[in-house]
Amino acid sequence: MNQTASVSHQIECQPIKDDKEFVDVSVPQRNWKGIAISLLVIVVVCSLITMSVVVLTPVEVPGSSRSRLTVADLYKPEFSVHDPEATWISDSEVVYRNRDGHVIKFNFALNETEVILSNSTFVAFKVAKYSLSADLKYALFAYDVKRIYRYSYTASYIVYNIYTREVWELNPPEVQNAVLQHAAWGKQGQQLIYIFENNIYYQSDVKSVSLRITSSGKEGVIFNGLSDWLYEEEILRSHLAHWWSPDGERLAFLTIDDTQVPNMALPQFTGSTYPKGLQYPYPMAGQTNPAVKLSTGQPWISPTHLVVRWVNRAQNLSLLTECDATLGVCLQRHRDTSETWLSRQGQEPLFSKDRSRFFLTLPVKQGGQGDFHHITMFTKKLRSDQDEVRHLTSGDWEVTDIVAYDENNQLVYFLSTEDSAQQRHLFWVSTLGLFPRRCLTCGLKEECSFFEANVHPDAQHAVLSCKGPGVPAVLLLNLDDVDSYFILENNLPLRTALGTKRTVQTDIRVITHGNFELPLKLNYPPDFSESFLYGLLLVVGSSPGTQTVTQEFRPDWDWVLVGSEQVIVARLDGRGSGFRGQRVSQDVHLKLGSVDAEDQMAALEYLVKLPFIDRTRVGVFGEDYGGFLALTMLKSPERLVRCAAAQTPIIDWSMYASAFSERYLGSPSTEESKYQASRVLSNMKGLQGGTLFLAHGTADANVHFTHSAELIKHLIKIGANYTMQIYPDEGHFLSQRSRIQLTHSLIGYFRGCLLDASSLLEQQGDDE
Amino acid sequence: MNQTASVSHQIECQPIKDDKEFVDVSVPQRNWKGIAISLLVIVVVCSLITMSVVVLTPVEVPGSSRSRLTVADLYKPEFSVHDPEATWISDSEVVYRNRDGHVIKFNFALNETEVILSNSTFVAFKVAKYSLSADLKYALFAYDVKRIYRYSYTASYIVYNIYTREVWELNPPEVQNAVLQHAAWGKQGQQLIYIFENNIYYQSDVKSVSLRITSSGKEGVIFNGLSDWLYEEEILRSHLAHWWSPDGERLAFLTIDDTQVPNMALPQFTGSTYPKGLQYPYPMAGQTNPAVKLSTGQPWISPTHLVVRWVNRAQNLSLLTECDATLGVCLQRHRDTSETWLSRQGQEPLFSKDRSRFFLTLPVKQGGQGDFHHITMFTKKLRSDQDEVRHLTSGDWEVTDIVAYDENNQLVYFLSTEDSAQQRHLFWVSTLGLFPRRCLTCGLKEECSFFEANVHPDAQHAVLSCKGPGVPAVLLLNLDDVDSYFILENNLPLRTALGTKRTVQTDIRVITHGNFELPLKLNYPPDFSESFLYGLLLVVGSSPGTQTVTQEFRPDWDWVLVGSEQVIVARLDGRGSGFRGQRVSQDVHLKLGSVDAEDQMAALEYLVKLPFIDRTRVGVFGEDYGGFLALTMLKSPERLVRCAAAQTPIIDWSMYASAFSERYLGSPSTEESKYQASRVLSNMKGLQGGTLFLAHGTADANVHFTHSAELIKHLIKIGANYTMQIYPDEGHFLSQRSRIQLTHSLIGYFRGCLLDASSLLEQQGDDE
Repeated sequence: MNQTASVSHQIECQPIKDDKEFVDVSVPQRNWKGIAISLLVIVVVCSLITMSVVVLTPVEVPGSSRSRLTVADLYKPEFSVHDPEATWISDSEVVYRNRDGHVIKFNFALNETEVILSNSTFVAFKVAKYSLSADLKYALFAYDVKRIYRYSYTASYIVYNIYTREVWELNPPEVQNAVLQHAAWGKQGQQLIYIFENNIYYQSDVKSVSLRITSSGKEGVIFNGLSDWLYEEEILRSHLAHWWSPDGERLAFLTIDDTQVPNMALPQFTGSTYPKGLQYPYPMAGQTNPAVKLSTGQPWISPTHLVVRWVNRAQNLSLLTECDATLGVCLQRHRDTSETWLSRQGQEPLFSKDRSRFFLTLPVKQGGQGDFHHITMFTKKLRSDQDEVRHLTSGDWEVTDIVAYDENNQLVYFLSTEDSAQQRHLFWVSTLGLFPRRCLTCGLKEECSFFEANVHPDAQHAVLSCKGPGVPAVLLLNLDDVDSYFILENNLPLRTALGTKRTVQTDIRVITHGNFELPLKLNYPPDFSESFLYGLLLVVGSSPGTQTVTQEFRPDWDWVLVGSEQVIVARLDGRGSGFRGQRVSQDVHLKLGSVDAEDQMAALEYLVKLPFIDRTRVGVFGEDYGGFLALTMLKSPERLVRCAAAQTPIIDWSMYASAFSERYLGSPSTEESKYQASRVLSNMKGLQGGTLFLAHGTADANVHFTHSAELIKHLIKIGANYTMQIYPDEGHFLSQRSRIQLTHSLIGYFRGCLLDASSLLEQQGDDE
Repeated sequence: MNQTASVSHQIECQPIKDDKEFVDVSVPQRNWKGIAISLLVIVVVCSLITMSVVVLTPVEVPGSSRSRLTVADLYKPEFSVHDPEATWISDSEVVYRNRDGHVIKFNFALNETEVILSNSTFVAFKVAKYSLSADLKYALFAYDVKRIYRYSYTASYIVYNIYTREVWELNPPEVQNAVLQHAAWGKQGQQLIYIFENNIYYQSDVKSVSLRITSSGKEGVIFNGLSDWLYEEEILRSHLAHWWSPDGERLAFLTIDDTQVPNMALPQFTGSTYPKGLQYPYPMAGQTNPAVKLSTGQPWISPTHLVVRWVNRAQNLSLLTECDATLGVCLQRHRDTSETWLSRQGQEPLFSKDRSRFFLTLPVKQGGQGDFHHITMFTKKLRSDQDEVRHLTSGDWEVTDIVAYDENNQLVYFLSTEDSAQQRHLFWVSTLGLFPRRCLTCGLKEECSFFEANVHPDAQHAVLSCKGPGVPAVLLLNLDDVDSYFILENNLPLRTALGTKRTVQTDIRVITHGNFELPLKLNYPPDFSESFLYGLLLVVGSSPGTQTVTQEFRPDWDWVLVGSEQVIVARLDGRGSGFRGQRVSQDVHLKLGSVDAEDQMAALEYLVKLPFIDRTRVGVFGEDYGGFLALTMLKSPERLVRCAAAQTPIIDWSMYASAFSERYLGSPSTEESKYQASRVLSNMKGLQGGTLFLAHGTADANVHFTHSAELIKHLIKIGANYTMQIYPDEGHFLSQRSRIQLTHSLIGYFRGCLLDASSLLEQQGDDE
């Protein structure tokens, strides 16, 4: 429990150095008493804040007995957060995998546990992933798992009889040693589904013959029940494109046809004498998108009905329809439009069992503060085609997730940012009366203010994942008695390991830029002192709609840098970031690389004015979209950035995925100037005195190596100063070995830049 | 004339530092007189050598008025050596291009010059290359020249009438704006030949219709009159595979069929939205080689006869045949075998006009010193199939080139290493009597000891290219009066520019390793002092059979490093290197990466024992084969190499060109263990405390990027310390911009390694 988080908003405390300047201001007749009093006040306020930091840092004893955090530490097994992946199997039972690797069935009604699969079974079959049949009699084991894109992978599978220990390979008929694209249990009994060569296969039970449901599958061209690259990364955000009906009697699936989508080539350098490259469909901005038979599908809402959301290419018109699978007829339930783009189009509406009512989070106007996502309840009116629409929540905060609908008690469970945009707490809201609501996790557990929840309304229990700010834990909470919980996983090895290390202090403050209040998170060395001068690294966050300043526990390589005790790491959620209303998140529309980069520069300007920051030792790091921002900032005439590192940066949105680029920048045919304005190479005549570090895998299927290659060519042309690390034949998600190498490289690069030897000498001189 | 070259063999002088140690040796009864005398002798010898250095450095005045050489200097136009490309057009005339860009006809019999083409014409048509028709009435101008491999390029061509200034594009029939693979004048009048889409076209004069001579050409598969990659790089060492008969009436050409040769893929990253890669035939060791219709062809030796050399795949059996083009009959003139490999298989035999006699350089045993290349004269005996064979030269030196045969005076002109292996002088040897010979260039011109020659025996004149050690010059020498010459090009701007710069001092010495004497060249800072400590960079030379320690003038990036005045750059010709006998050059047979790397390590061990070398600051650089050696040395357990840089290194000879790898290592099927032993990654468990810098173009068609990619993967795996520069979509021969970038990167890397801050401080401390 040495993770510390002191949250203070807009600290106005004047530090010692500035105080001196303040005293030096020449005043004709000095009001010595006034000055003394004001100084006293400042000292007291400063002390209080320092105290609050100290008080909120309970276990941080003087560091002498603790060692510095190293890169090797980050990759040790005890440093990993274990996710037990608890799932409901009945209203009184969950199944989860404990840290030792055993799969446990836990009956919380009887307080009984049972080992269903022992860790030795996992070792014996080299199991990388497992799942249990609906009747809990069989397990499906995946081995030889090979990652493809963000979610997709191929694997070989075996079926394992938990009681007899009988084992056999899962293969399509007349195929041996098959490498499958997917395999999973169905909703009932021992139903099995798997996908091979882009076709879906079904078995009604483990012993029955496989039935091939589709035959149109064609490698890299026509995908049945699976996403192509675009649908996996940007639309469904899953590699799976099929959905069971609740009773397991029906299956909905997409057929994605990439015949007209241009192919991107990924080269191959290693592994064979004459290596061949790989081609796969990848529609860039303005190019032909895949054709699909069933558009962005939503799951089944009853044994016979499913809900389907249809979104136009511009992503500013969306129709939610309810379809009768037996009749093939669809009925519109909701229509949504936007002048920018529609957010949360992957959101699944939550339906009542009789389909008469459903819930969605939708942007709702909150006075002058713009739109915030709140729970909207749609209820079928008698004798009318129209639904009655009610907003169950309101305020300048957002509902991030609707978790469950308890029809017996008329309660909707949800997660929200009501306490703070950096937190997530579980609430319920009643659908009756004045929609009273209650927080279930506020103050539930020390060092836990950022939750995920999996609520079983019939079970009156929730599996809660505490994600921070302390070491993560997984709890089972009784909804009838929300003051007690059962701990499924406490990550004790991680707590112990952290106890021996000097880690970081955290402080979240808010800076004001224009009309926007922007949260800024700082990671300080454990023995931070305002009388020292620190280097600064700003880690530039990721894509629009996401958040980087939260109270989640996220140890990363920057902790090692901070642990060197001369660097402070900062993160800002600027315009474009999510969960603080549409006014913030949608201000980047048609302006990628403009207002978002401006906000990051504003953060730098704020930070370098702090008395303990050395403005000559400022670095920026960003990955993907963050790499784009870091490079954009490196062009700034303010010349604040001395060194920048960009991992897999996007340098031209016209070369990036259609669904992403067009969502924020529109169609390249009508918004060509917007694409042009956001190009990293536009007006890049030098690096404004800074240096650049680049990292990229040559087989990156998401942000193609082309981006870095074009950048390098330009840097050579303008004679700029840069270094790089490339990862031959590696994709967007680097192998662990390469991640370790990159971590060392990044830390080495920023140490060279931020721990300046001369400024260290100066600093020592100042101290004397 | 500030270029300095002091040549001293095996300097045994003890430097001051060692003297002190010598004095400190405890001797029970010191012979003070003896010590004093020996000290005096040592001091005198040292002074003499120092004097000789000073004497041989005539214009090197104290550096204050001269500036340091920079990378930018190296790429300035005035730093380039101008080659006037003088060619004979009659026995009294040469044509050349002067430094101003005018093409000049010079009649040295009448001492008249005439401007044939003015530089403004070159500018007007953006001419990159030019040639003149045999009748001097037309010029062929190439523009938009795009390099392919080492020699090959594509270009567009225009024909220019020198007198009327009329101009037209050279295009195949019914093709517009053709990009040709080759275009050139024939032997007579206005004969034109050009190659388009791998087919040969012929025009009897500039106005006549083009005749397509071949039709089998197929891009990347069947080549007519042109080399494929293998023939260009390794067999013909030219992109041209056709030869005119002397009277221009006949043309011999190769048809190279790559149908069965495996294709290598080069990726493409930049330049288009969906870049596509390139495929081209590249046989690696053990793979199918191209089939050819006419094997390694030699040129015509009479209007009707040509000579053809046939070499087996193992390159240890060679037949020289004389073929009658009218009858299609070939007759063997010479057969050669070797237990290792046959050298100089690209050598053209020099025939007498009546074909009864020809000359070749062949290895000839010189007592216990092994074989050296000497002129062998083959003369047809009357009434016999056998030729009479005589060796015109002998000794422990080599004839490097037979230049001309003067049948009137019975003299053979040749270049040899008789004076020194680091020099090349022009000699003649008589074919009569005791074969008396004479040096024509020895002492001819100050600072000129390395010559190339183009002798016109009828003209009794030679065009001499002085390549060093001073600034290069091109001379026209009268063979009847070899004490006077006419200077065609003196590179005055380069002489002037060098006069303002502090450059390098050079010293060639010989070290002994095993039974081999190996030349070692050192480049010192201009103000070198033995009482300072210098870092050391060993530049590891190139392929077997070539030479890196010569008296050629070769300013390179290492001069900038030496100019920093704290680094000494060394080059060694170890075993495998050429022009010092077969015993040296062929000792690497089946042992690449073994004895050659050993010799370089021996050089390092010798150098770090010198009192002015800091053994903690030692670097190694190598390119291609040299990169292979540098990496091999980095594995050495001696841990001498602190930093190594490898540009386009070969890490596995089984992935390199068949003709090269099999020449030195044999067939992979029978010599698998030899290939395995030479693999860079074999037993590479770390970098022995050193660091590595890698540079490679991703579209390198010679040494594929695969080599660096496999190396990087391995370095990541073993957690080694390395940095890199890659050049997207660039080939083996980098663009000028990339070369500048690489030069800066290399110098930055070696400065960081060889100019150690702490050792500098120590050094300063020692000085006080």
